[in-house]
Amino acid sequence: MDNLKIKLRQFAKDRNWDQFHSPKNLSMALAGEVGELMEIFQWLKEEETLLDNINEKNLLRAKEELADIFIYIIRIADKLGIDLINEANKKIDLNSVKYPVELSKDNAVKYNRRDE
Amino acid sequence: MDNLKIKLRQFAKDRNWDQFHSPKNLSMALAGEVGELMEIFQWLKEEETLLDNINEKNLLRAKEELADIFIYIIRIADKLGIDLINEANKKIDLNSVKYPVELSKDNAVKYNRRDE
Amino acid sequence: MDNLKIKLRQFAKDRNWDQFHSPKNLSMALAGEVGELMEIFQWLKEEETLLDNINEKNLLRAKEELADIFIYIIRIADKLGIDLINEANKKIDLNSVKYPVELSKDNAVKYNRRDE
Amino acid sequence: MDNLKIKLRQFAKDRNWDQFHSPKNLSMALAGEVGELMEIFQWLKEEETLLDNINEKNLLRAKEELADIFIYIIRIADKLGIDLINEANKKIDLNSVKYPVELSKDNAVKYNRRDE
Repeated sequence: MDNLKIKLRQFAKDRNWDQFHSPKNLSMALAGEVGELMEIFQWLKEEETLLDNINEKNLLRAKEELADIFIYIIRIADKLGIDLINEANKKIDLNSVKYPVELSKDNAVKYNRRDE
Repeated sequence: MDNLKIKLRQFAKDRNWDQFHSPKNLSMALAGEVGELMEIFQWLKEEETLLDNINEKNLLRAKEELADIFIYIIRIADKLGIDLINEANKKIDLNSVKYPVELSKDNAVKYNRRDE
Repeated sequence: MDNLKIKLRQFAKDRNWDQFHSPKNLSMALAGEVGELMEIFQWLKEEETLLDNINEKNLLRAKEELADIFIYIIRIADKLGIDLINEANKKIDLNSVKYPVELSKDNAVKYNRRDE
Repeated sequence: MDNLKIKLRQFAKDRNWDQFHSPKNLSMALAGEVGELMEIFQWLKEEETLLDNINEKNLLRAKEELADIFIYIIRIADKLGIDLINEANKKIDLNSVKYPVELSKDNAVKYNRRDE
């Protein structure tokens, strides 16, 4: 990932694109790419999106969109000095507390809506 | 990242959440988290989202949302057998061709709209 | 809808919020609300989101999020001088050409991907 | 709007598309269209998205994307038996309470984050 971060920095620098790459703008670009991921899956049944069933064309598109999404979050994190690996590990620990196994077994309801 | 992938697998397994984690559903969860990232930045000036200017509270929220987003794309990639690092590297190479320095200098217009 | 447009103008004016309501910012706020709509549906089976099956709590949340989404698109359209009713009618006519009945029967594939 | 609702019902019926049009799927399609709206504005300065400054090409694209977004929320509301006009009016009244003029003047911070 560090290697990707460096490559993306250079890519932007070569094109003088840092002027466009504020976290605000990059978050919009990220949302645009997530929208393209939606488009692949929107009319498919859940089952048709599983690895065993997804067709070649849709899997190929998903790879491209996930790559774009990944690129933009590396870029946002870099711009904000955020260590994604570290933050994700902290978040998983936090989620273990918010979603204890006994309350969350077979139940994905958001922790703050569990009692509604 | 492999370590995160394994931890997330175990997290879902412990809660019996694989029944919810189709790529279709995970992509919606990803869009939800990106929506929360938007909410941080939506009324801020671009300048206020830069690392030098962003306030402590907004930076903290951005860290949490980026962690959630990162977690979901690792999870989708795992479910679809996609190697994110590899795909991102391929995409950067592809983008070098789509956005040659001479055409893209100071110009972030999408490659297929350049001549509109 | 015209009545809503006027009320929303006044709401923003009273709070001096036009300074925040650029189409760019409003589009981000719209994306944030759509993200909240996603959160309602993300772990539900398709069937559980149908009117006959959706539970009271989720329907109530959907009403609130759709209201927010509707409010923001009225606001963006107002800021850009766009007549939503008129544009939607034109788009439906255009879609009739892009998706002729004979090619689109039981097939929601995007018109420009039909031959892939 | 009622007229649009009827036209969209017929459009879907003619193509046998109701099988695809669960609220869950339609919300993903909506997110996809919002993603396309993002793409128009993402690299533009706020000022460049204002009606006085936006260029012809971007305004035309915005019209099309807003039409798509409007179509999908009419469709979701129809599928869930929701009266958008009514819900939006209720939401504006609610927002008047959440965002009183004295607290919200020049301040768009979300009501539940005002004291953070």
